Amino acid sequence: MPRFFVGGGNIAGGIALVGGRDAEHIHVLRMKVGDHIVLCDGRGTDYNCRIRRMADGVVEAEVEACGPSVTEPTVSATILAGIPKGERADYIVQKTTETGAESIGFFSCERCVARPDERALEKKLQRWQRIAEEAAKQCGRGRIPQVFWAGSFQEALALAKKSALPLFCYETGERESLRAVLSAAMPILSAAILTGPEGGFTPQEAEEARAAGMTWCSLGTRIFRCETAPVVALAALMYETGNL
Amino acid sequence: MPRFFVGGGNIAGGIALVGGRDAEHIHVLRMKVGDHIVLCDGRGTDYNCRIRRMADGVVEAEVEACGPSVTEPTVSATILAGIPKGERADYIVQKTTETGAESIGFFSCERCVARPDERALEKKLQRWQRIAEEAAKQCGRGRIPQVFWAGSFQEALALAKKSALPLFCYETGERESLRAVLSAAMPILSAAILTGPEGGFTPQEAEEARAAGMTWCSLGTRIFRCETAPVVALAALMYETGNL
Repeated sequence: MPRFFVGGGNIAGGIALVGGRDAEHIHVLRMKVGDHIVLCDGRGTDYNCRIRRMADGVVEAEVEACGPSVTEPTVSATILAGIPKGERADYIVQKTTETGAESIGFFSCERCVARPDERALEKKLQRWQRIAEEAAKQCGRGRIPQVFWAGSFQEALALAKKSALPLFCYETGERESLRAVLSAAMPILSAAILTGPEGGFTPQEAEEARAAGMTWCSLGTRIFRCETAPVVALAALMYETGNL
Repeated sequence: MPRFFVGGGNIAGGIALVGGRDAEHIHVLRMKVGDHIVLCDGRGTDYNCRIRRMADGVVEAEVEACGPSVTEPTVSATILAGIPKGERADYIVQKTTETGAESIGFFSCERCVARPDERALEKKLQRWQRIAEEAAKQCGRGRIPQVFWAGSFQEALALAKKSALPLFCYETGERESLRAVLSAAMPILSAAILTGPEGGFTPQEAEEARAAGMTWCSLGTRIFRCETAPVVALAALMYETGNL
């Protein structure tokens, strides 16, 4: 069934209003009064609606039922990535949105090459949020992940620690495999996946993460690029929690 | 330990020769006679070597031990993807190489938008093979995946069927989750992952796949982009088989 995101404010009193491009799209699909559509508030709730009026570029639909979006994973996953250069961040946002991230934060750490100033960062955040929205629509998610600036490495650690399973993906040292960590932690309701920038974490940062209570884990014997690691780790989390 | 790919022909009689850029790189790393390096033949065997001579842009090293590369996964995975447009194919090659694919083939099917002619295809294959080589080096693999043209949809099916677990990733219809399929099939020695182009497979192609004995499976409730699906499915396979 065709599916559209609407701002929560456009659903009230059992009536939903769809305007702009989505209304055009409904016309292009040759839908008519009486047809069914799914409207999604972007926060995890789906509304099953029946079109009851189409005029002046606005589609009015009656809500027949609503409930938690069936396309949302059962695990709440926060991605925290050391900010990489160029298009790699775009890639992380797009692919982890598809894979089911609930929120996606970037942080700064010692080996980050990218050091955007406040103004550049504001523009980047707007751009990333648009990418997340586009990806969420295309893959049929019920929630648009929030993309945010997580601040310093220490702030990212503090944030990660708020989830039930704060994972620190690290390529050396004594650590368990992701599989060992995830399967031992089941059932998993929330997790944070912290990954490094192009040059990885410094040994000091890794120690700081351990001292802060993060769980070190390995992504196997190969070393993933900084933009691939969060996607692969998130796919593994979705797999272990029955969301793949 | 520093790790370099060498052509199999450059290792003979217990002596390995490293030339070109890798020899330069060894110089840049300020290595000297007596230091240890790992040479990899790109086919899954690692050679632990000790440098015994450095002159005229050539590094000569003595093989002290050799064995199966420890960075290679235990499962042999073949990726078969409906050829997508533009950079998406590059992306599939790079990311599935990192994730541990043994070989990566593209095929043509009904909804493929990209229809390269023979000459364009030859150039593309060269380009993809270079991407695979670069990615294999960077992530520390012991094997460079072979990138190849798999031909028609029917030829791709025939090829997939040669593996012990031929998976057909499909977004509708009655099918089991990837997790149910993989966990029931363990232990898995070889698998093929067949995914569609931008527009997906036609219902006829899906039926043809089923009739040919492929196992339909779902990648969850969301619909992945054509360049994301093989990476996520391969990550799940690596996870289930203990390679993540």
